[in-house]
Amino acid sequence: MTNSCLPINLADKFAQFSDLWSQKKVADLNDSEVKLAKMKGEFIWHTHEDTDELFLVVSGRLTVQLRDGDVVLGPGELFVVPRGVEHCPVADEETAVLLLEPAGTLNTGDAGGPRSKAPEAL
Amino acid sequence: MTNSCLPINLADKFAQFSDLWSQKKVADLNDSEVKLAKMKGEFIWHTHEDTDELFLVVSGRLTVQLRDGDVVLGPGELFVVPRGVEHCPVADEETAVLLLEPAGTLNTGDAGGPRSKAPEAL
Repeated sequence: MTNSCLPINLADKFAQFSDLWSQKKVADLNDSEVKLAKMKGEFIWHTHEDTDELFLVVSGRLTVQLRDGDVVLGPGELFVVPRGVEHCPVADEETAVLLLEPAGTLNTGDAGGPRSKAPEAL
Repeated sequence: MTNSCLPINLADKFAQFSDLWSQKKVADLNDSEVKLAKMKGEFIWHTHEDTDELFLVVSGRLTVQLRDGDVVLGPGELFVVPRGVEHCPVADEETAVLLLEPAGTLNTGDAGGPRSKAPEAL
Protein backbone atom coordinates (compact mmCIF):
# COMPACT_ATOMS: atom_id res chain seq x y z
CA MET A 1 0.00 0.00 0.00
CA THR A 2 1.29 3.47 -0.81
CA ASN A 3 1.38 6.42 1.57
CA SER A 4 -1.68 7.79 -0.15
CA CYS A 5 -3.59 4.92 1.41
CA LEU A 6 -2.66 5.77 4.98
CA PRO A 7 -5.21 7.45 7.22
CA ILE A 8 -4.62 11.03 8.26
CA ASN A 9 -4.52 11.25 12.04
CA LEU A 10 -5.45 14.79 12.99
CA ALA A 11 -3.75 14.75 16.40
CA ASP A 12 -0.52 13.51 14.83
CA LYS A 13 -0.68 16.20 12.18
CA PHE A 14 -1.34 18.98 14.69
CA ALA A 15 1.67 17.77 16.70
CA GLN A 16 3.90 18.43 13.70
CA PHE A 17 3.66 22.22 13.76
CA SER A 18 3.34 25.06 16.22
CA ASP A 19 3.06 28.25 14.20
CA LEU A 20 -0.22 30.09 14.55
CA TRP A 21 -2.55 31.12 11.70
CA SER A 22 -0.54 29.11 9.21
CA GLN A 23 -2.63 26.70 7.18
CA LYS A 24 -1.18 23.24 6.55
CA LYS A 25 -2.68 21.17 3.75
CA VAL A 26 -3.23 17.53 4.66
CA ALA A 27 -5.42 16.32 1.80
CA ASP A 28 -6.94 17.23 -1.53
CA LEU A 29 -10.64 16.65 -2.08
CA ASN A 30 -11.76 17.35 -5.63
CA ASP A 31 -11.00 21.05 -6.17
CA SER A 32 -10.78 21.72 -2.45
CA GLU A 33 -8.16 21.31 0.23
CA VAL A 34 -8.39 19.95 3.76
CA LYS A 35 -6.19 22.18 5.87
CA LEU A 36 -5.24 22.41 9.52
CA ALA A 37 -4.42 25.54 11.49
CA LYS A 38 -3.65 26.52 15.05
CA MET A 39 -5.32 29.74 16.05
CA LYS A 40 -4.80 31.98 19.06
CA GLY A 41 -5.59 35.65 19.36
CA GLU A 42 -7.54 37.56 16.78
CA PHE A 43 -7.17 37.28 13.01
CA ILE A 44 -8.46 40.02 10.68
CA TRP A 45 -11.89 40.78 9.32
CA HIS A 46 -12.19 39.50 5.77
CA THR A 47 -14.60 38.06 3.24
CA HIS A 48 -14.38 35.27 0.69
CA GLU A 49 -16.65 36.57 -2.03
CA ASP A 50 -16.70 33.39 -4.07
CA THR A 51 -16.56 30.54 -1.60
CA ASP A 52 -18.03 29.14 1.57
CA GLU A 53 -15.50 28.14 4.24
CA LEU A 54 -15.83 25.27 6.72
CA PHE A 55 -14.36 25.48 10.23
CA LEU A 56 -14.32 22.33 12.40
CA VAL A 57 -12.79 22.71 15.85
CA VAL A 58 -10.71 19.72 16.95
CA SER A 59 -9.54 21.15 20.29
CA GLY A 60 -9.82 24.47 22.04
CA ARG A 61 -12.50 27.05 21.42
CA LEU A 62 -12.95 29.31 18.41
CA THR A 63 -15.19 32.30 18.04
CA VAL A 64 -16.08 33.14 14.47
CA GLN A 65 -17.08 36.76 14.73
CA LEU A 66 -19.68 37.86 12.20
CA ARG A 67 -21.04 41.36 11.82
CA ASP A 68 -24.38 40.22 13.22
CA GLY A 69 -23.12 38.03 16.05
CA ASP A 70 -20.56 35.52 17.21
CA VAL A 71 -20.50 31.78 16.52
CA VAL A 72 -18.64 29.93 19.28
CA LEU A 73 -17.25 26.51 18.41
CA GLY A 74 -15.91 23.89 20.80
CA PRO A 75 -14.40 20.50 19.97
CA GLY A 76 -16.55 18.52 17.57
CA GLU A 77 -18.43 21.58 16.36
CA LEU A 78 -18.37 22.96 12.86
CA PHE A 79 -19.62 26.05 11.08
CA VAL A 80 -19.74 27.06 7.44
CA VAL A 81 -19.17 30.75 6.80
CA PRO A 82 -21.22 31.46 3.68
CA ARG A 83 -19.54 33.18 0.77
CA GLY A 84 -19.72 36.93 0.98
CA VAL A 85 -20.10 37.01 4.76
CA GLU A 86 -17.46 39.06 6.54
CA HIS A 87 -15.88 37.22 9.45
CA CYS A 88 -12.99 37.34 11.88
CA PRO A 89 -11.82 34.28 13.84
CA VAL A 90 -10.60 34.80 17.40
CA ALA A 91 -9.45 32.33 20.06
CA ASP A 92 -8.52 32.99 23.67
CA GLU A 93 -6.65 29.70 23.94
CA GLU A 94 -4.70 27.83 21.29
CA THR A 95 -7.30 26.14 19.14
CA ALA A 96 -6.83 23.40 16.56
CA VAL A 97 -9.07 23.83 13.53
CA LEU A 98 -9.75 21.83 10.39
CA LEU A 99 -10.60 24.01 7.40
CA LEU A 100 -12.09 23.04 4.08
CA GLU A 101 -12.33 25.36 1.11
CA PRO A 102 -11.35 25.44 -2.56
CA ALA A 103 -7.67 25.27 -3.45
CA GLY A 104 -6.28 28.74 -3.93
CA THR A 105 -8.47 30.39 -1.30
CA LEU A 106 -6.39 33.03 0.47
CA ASN A 107 -6.55 33.03 4.27
CA THR A 108 -7.18 36.78 4.33
CA GLY A 109 -9.78 36.73 1.55
CA ASP A 110 -10.47 40.16 0.11
CA ALA A 111 -8.57 41.94 2.88
CA GLY A 112 -5.09 40.87 1.85
CA GLY A 113 -2.27 42.50 3.78
CA PRO A 114 0.69 41.25 5.80
CA ARG A 115 -1.12 38.26 7.32
CA SER A 116 -1.82 36.74 3.91
CA LYS A 117 -0.11 33.40 3.59
CA ALA A 118 -0.50 30.51 1.20
CA PRO A 119 -1.07 27.08 2.73
CA GLU A 120 1.92 24.82 3.21
CA ALA A 121 1.99 21.08 2.69
CA LEU A 122 2.37 19.13 5.92
CA MET B 1 -28.97 35.68 14.96
CA THR B 2 -30.64 33.14 12.70
CA ASN B 3 -30.35 29.38 12.96
CA SER B 4 -27.91 29.45 10.08
CA CYS B 5 -25.47 31.10 12.44
CA LEU B 6 -25.58 28.35 15.04
CA PRO B 7 -22.69 25.90 15.27
CA ILE B 8 -23.27 22.30 14.25
CA ASN B 9 -22.46 20.02 17.16
CA LEU B 10 -21.59 16.63 15.72
CA ALA B 11 -22.40 14.65 18.89
CA ASP B 12 -25.83 16.31 19.11
CA LYS B 13 -26.52 15.55 15.47
CA PHE B 14 -25.47 11.91 15.77
CA ALA B 15 -27.80 11.58 18.77
CA GLN B 16 -30.75 12.52 16.56
CA PHE B 17 -30.79 9.37 14.45
CA SER B 18 -30.07 5.68 14.76
CA ASP B 19 -30.54 4.17 11.32
CA LEU B 20 -27.42 2.69 9.77
CA TRP B 21 -25.94 3.57 6.37
CA SER B 22 -28.33 6.49 5.99
CA GLN B 23 -26.64 9.77 5.20
CA LYS B 24 -27.91 12.87 6.98
CA LYS B 25 -27.00 16.26 5.52
CA VAL B 26 -25.98 18.82 8.12
CA ALA B 27 -24.46 21.57 5.97
CA ASP B 28 -23.85 22.75 2.44
CA LEU B 29 -20.38 23.82 1.44
CA ASN B 30 -20.20 25.28 -2.04
CA ASP B 31 -21.34 22.47 -4.34
CA SER B 32 -20.71 19.84 -1.69
CA GLU B 33 -22.56 18.50 1.31
CA VAL B 34 -21.39 17.70 4.82
CA LYS B 35 -23.18 14.50 5.79
CA LEU B 36 -23.22 12.22 8.81
CA ALA B 37 -23.76 8.48 8.84
CA LYS B 38 -23.72 5.64 11.31
CA MET B 39 -22.10 2.52 9.94
CA LYS B 40 -22.05 -1.03 11.22
CA GLY B 41 -21.49 -4.18 9.25
CA GLU B 42 -20.36 -4.19 5.64
CA PHE B 43 -21.62 -1.91 2.89
CA ILE B 44 -21.14 -2.79 -0.78
CA TRP B 45 -18.22 -2.42 -3.15
CA HIS B 46 -18.68 0.65 -5.33
CA THR B 47 -16.86 3.42 -7.13
CA HIS B 48 -17.48 7.13 -7.55
CA GLU B 49 -16.04 7.73 -10.99
CA ASP B 50 -16.25 11.50 -10.87
CA THR B 51 -15.58 12.49 -7.29
CA ASP B 52 -13.29 12.01 -4.35
CA GLU B 53 -15.00 11.15 -1.05
CA LEU B 54 -13.88 12.19 2.43
CA PHE B 55 -14.45 9.96 5.47
CA LEU B 56 -13.74 11.38 8.94
CA VAL B 57 -14.39 9.04 11.85
CA VAL B 58 -15.92 10.76 14.89
CA SER B 59 -16.35 7.64 17.04
CA GLY B 60 -15.89 3.91 16.53
CA ARG B 61 -13.65 2.32 13.95
CA LEU B 62 -14.11 2.15 10.20
CA THR B 63 -12.26 0.04 7.71
CA VAL B 64 -12.32 1.39 4.19
CA GLN B 65 -11.58 -1.68 2.14
CA LEU B 66 -9.77 -0.99 -1.11
CA ARG B 67 -8.80 -3.59 -3.69
CA ASP B 68 -5.14 -3.19 -2.74
CA GLY B 69 -5.50 -3.01 1.03
CA ASP B 70 -7.51 -1.76 3.98
CA VAL B 71 -7.46 1.70 5.50
CA VAL B 72 -8.43 1.57 9.16
CA LEU B 73 -9.73 4.80 10.71
CA GLY B 74 -10.26 5.55 14.37
CA PRO B 75 -11.68 8.69 15.96
CA GLY B 76 -10.02 11.83 14.64
CA GLU B 77 -8.73 10.11 11.53
CA LEU B 78 -9.74 10.89 7.97
CA PHE B 79 -9.20 9.41 4.55
CA VAL B 80 -10.04 10.60 1.07
CA VAL B 81 -11.02 7.84 -1.35
CA PRO B 82 -9.84 9.13 -4.72
CA ARG B 83 -12.32 9.21 -7.59
CA GLY B 84 -12.36 5.99 -9.55
CA VAL B 85 -11.09 3.86 -6.67
CA GLU B 86 -13.37 0.98 -5.74
CA HIS B 87 -14.05 0.78 -2.03
CA CYS B 88 -16.27 -0.89 0.55
CA PRO B 89 -16.69 0.47 4.09
CA VAL B 90 -17.04 -2.02 6.92
CA ALA B 91 -17.32 -1.53 10.68
CA ASP B 92 -17.39 -4.14 13.43
CA GLU B 93 -18.89 -1.70 15.91
CA GLU B 94 -21.29 1.17 15.32
CA THR B 95 -19.18 3.96 13.91
CA ALA B 96 -20.04 7.62 13.47
CA VAL B 97 -18.64 9.11 10.29
CA LEU B 98 -18.60 12.57 8.73
CA LEU B 99 -18.67 12.47 4.92
CA LEU B 100 -17.97 15.23 2.47
CA GLU B 101 -18.61 14.96 -1.25
CA PRO B 102 -20.46 16.86 -3.98
CA ALA B 103 -24.22 17.22 -3.71
CA GLY B 104 -25.95 14.48 -5.69
CA THR B 105 -23.31 11.83 -5.02
CA LEU B 106 -25.09 8.52 -4.56
CA ASN B 107 -24.01 6.42 -1.57
CA THR B 108 -23.66 3.34 -3.75
CA GLY B 109 -21.83 5.11 -6.58
CA ASP B 110 -21.75 3.10 -9.80
CA ALA B 111 -23.07 -0.03 -8.10
CA GLY B 112 -26.63 1.14 -7.49
CA GLY B 113 -28.97 -1.49 -6.16
CA PRO B 114 -31.26 -1.78 -3.15
CA ARG B 115 -28.92 -0.02 -0.73
CA SER B 116 -28.95 3.18 -2.77
CA LYS B 117 -30.43 6.02 -0.74
CA ALA B 118 -30.42 9.76 -1.15
CA PRO B 119 -29.23 11.80 1.82
CA GLU B 120 -31.85 13.18 4.19
CA ALA B 121 -31.75 16.56 5.86
CA LEU B 122 -31.22 16.34 9.58
